[in-house]
Amino acid sequence: MSITILKGAIVSAPALGRLETTEGGYLVAENGKIAGVFPVLPERYAGAPVEDYGDALILQSLADLHLHAPQYPMLGMGMDLPLLDWLNAYTFPTEARFADPCYARTVYRQLARELIENGTTRVCMFSSLHREATLILMEELEKAGVTGYVGKVNMDRNAIPALQEETEESMRETLRWLEECQNFRLVKPILTPRFTPSCTNDLMAFLGKLAAERNLPIQSHLSENTGEIAWVKDLHPDCGQYWETYQKYGLWNNRTLMAHCVWSDQRERTAMRTAGVTVVHCADSNQNICSGTAPVRAMLNEGVNVALGSDIAGGDHLNMFDVVAASIRASKARRILDGWETDFLTVAEGWFLGTSAGAAFFEASPGFAPGNMLHAVVVDDGGLPQPHSLTPAERLERCVYRRQKNAVQAVWSEGKRVFSNT
Amino acid sequence: MSITILKGAIVSAPALGRLETTEGGYLVAENGKIAGVFPVLPERYAGAPVEDYGDALILQSLADLHLHAPQYPMLGMGMDLPLLDWLNAYTFPTEARFADPCYARTVYRQLARELIENGTTRVCMFSSLHREATLILMEELEKAGVTGYVGKVNMDRNAIPALQEETEESMRETLRWLEECQNFRLVKPILTPRFTPSCTNDLMAFLGKLAAERNLPIQSHLSENTGEIAWVKDLHPDCGQYWETYQKYGLWNNRTLMAHCVWSDQRERTAMRTAGVTVVHCADSNQNICSGTAPVRAMLNEGVNVALGSDIAGGDHLNMFDVVAASIRASKARRILDGWETDFLTVAEGWFLGTSAGAAFFEASPGFAPGNMLHAVVVDDGGLPQPHSLTPAERLERCVYRRQKNAVQAVWSEGKRVFSNT
Repeated sequence: MSITILKGAIVSAPALGRLETTEGGYLVAENGKIAGVFPVLPERYAGAPVEDYGDALILQSLADLHLHAPQYPMLGMGMDLPLLDWLNAYTFPTEARFADPCYARTVYRQLARELIENGTTRVCMFSSLHREATLILMEELEKAGVTGYVGKVNMDRNAIPALQEETEESMRETLRWLEECQNFRLVKPILTPRFTPSCTNDLMAFLGKLAAERNLPIQSHLSENTGEIAWVKDLHPDCGQYWETYQKYGLWNNRTLMAHCVWSDQRERTAMRTAGVTVVHCADSNQNICSGTAPVRAMLNEGVNVALGSDIAGGDHLNMFDVVAASIRASKARRILDGWETDFLTVAEGWFLGTSAGAAFFEASPGFAPGNMLHAVVVDDGGLPQPHSLTPAERLERCVYRRQKNAVQAVWSEGKRVFSNT
Repeated sequence: MSITILKGAIVSAPALGRLETTEGGYLVAENGKIAGVFPVLPERYAGAPVEDYGDALILQSLADLHLHAPQYPMLGMGMDLPLLDWLNAYTFPTEARFADPCYARTVYRQLARELIENGTTRVCMFSSLHREATLILMEELEKAGVTGYVGKVNMDRNAIPALQEETEESMRETLRWLEECQNFRLVKPILTPRFTPSCTNDLMAFLGKLAAERNLPIQSHLSENTGEIAWVKDLHPDCGQYWETYQKYGLWNNRTLMAHCVWSDQRERTAMRTAGVTVVHCADSNQNICSGTAPVRAMLNEGVNVALGSDIAGGDHLNMFDVVAASIRASKARRILDGWETDFLTVAEGWFLGTSAGAAFFEASPGFAPGNMLHAVVVDDGGLPQPHSLTPAERLERCVYRRQKNAVQAVWSEGKRVFSNT
């Protein structure tokens, strides 16, 4: 049996709004699976090697549950443009380049490395519609130590010619991709209709059937902006609300991720809670594209599952520490919008959403719970000035708000060390 | 005569919303003063050494017109607390530590270095009320190459005992500080009544008289939140609006900076424009503390001077590239709040506010205008993936949105190179 023991100031998020801290504690994993967090090393581990990180913080690593891998090269560009111009000038041409496997290899290798270096070890990603590039993405993620789900995008209507499939072709390529990605260990397939306007009813029905037959998870977009909602209404006059266009085809269950949900009202939120759908809140993107500000506090109060996504390149931060901070800030903007009637997200709440809530989609228990695979990031904040002696919670807050050069010391993913800056 | 020639992709902001770009251009300074930007090196400079930065961007350096130096150690902490609790738990105890010159020296040296490394070469700063620590701050800034104004804070009411002066003491210490800081070359004094509730009428009158007699600039806070505005109204029932409490004492003119102005209505904004007061917009801080979102677009449309401030530690980004991005994002939040009636700030507009608009307070002309002292930052973005061949404007946008490790290659301040990462 292999034993991993990390020593440091351990902070975890066992519940929404609650932090558990153990200074000078031991985080122990057996064969990559967490055995526990201990203030004193139990007798049975005596003699096992300890990775002593001194006073550094040992945190749960982060989960990014919505991002578009092929938009990575255009991260932070075109943010002044209205949505349609942005898609035409940047998104579509950039995504179309992933027909070239060499370009895909170079970009995806860099993306995977940047994710790991920033402590993101779990993802749910949109690839492009290209089967080959999607397999390359999965390969590069797995090599770098990123775990999670990747989806070959399906779109057989309302796109540009270079980025649109025939319906049959989309189905066939999806099946072939599913065959070809069976050997990945850490990165698994997720069905990915881009969003209702991009998929014909036949394609939606096919994907819903496939999800049921093969027990596959599903990711898509929902209620991002008001124009989109009106468009969906036109396309599906039989559906009362946007979410019903997914439900109708078997794409609405407890393995479904829906990005954005900015305009989801009480009824749509109730449908999420009832089905166990997870909302992926993408604060940066929603603000950059002027979509609005999602009612995250209402969702949490109502018991809807909420996790966070960077949504690059609508979002401009790949680093999930930044995304947590952006989510907290957006909740404050929402509070101002609501006339101070709703509460903002606290740091502990934002941190839970960026870690435990995301990990829950992968069936991990919250915090460093025994039985979870070890996913952790070690952060050294020793270079910063101290106003007073800080608690681990204060130090965590500072990590969320203040990106520090070379602060990430090591990253553990699925039980293995995948990054070390020494 | 000393000649400085920087070669690279030169981008400047000569007017609000306009970028001027010269790829492979030459930025020339004579004795530290800009002679011009040239696509081809003029004959008269033949033989002079050229600092060739290849394809790197050569940008104007940034100006941070509102920040609290003694709050630097608490940057990114206490952001969940309501304003008063935040002040009591973090701000006041931290500021009180600057009675200790050794602590001040250590912290201010690090602050000055971090400013320069991030390309901020001009500042208007609040120190604490401590005369000695204020001189240390000025010394450390000057040594690092940061230029601008620093103010010893005046506060003789409504503070905690450790952070309050007697009225006479405040006046005496201010005069002594002004004597003692005469020999600084790059960092000059600015009168700094903390804000109306912290200063008795006698102190305000004294400061106004001093400003006039010695031709000193002034900085303070204005209309940050609604509770504060009501408080000022109670303290000065004779004044129709908050700004009049400054005007009444001669603290409202074209050398006045007013931070925040979140709730400044049309009448207050007209008073700013008429007097030539400069608003310092602090987007991060206003959102973090739930103050609101300042009507920056209205101010610009009306011809009010607006510059940007990090406002650490209410703001959580010291890096002004981040502050520019935060200001753009806040303008989009404001747009959502206004029902999409107002325009957001474009990247070119945000960049102008963070560079040329701030430099204007120091009487520099916009952009790399001939006659300006050379203030520049060289940024290498070569490590990022390319979706297509990028224009300098696209590359600037990416620098604003996407902080890149070790991207700042060199910084020039007041004609001298003050940082180089090679």
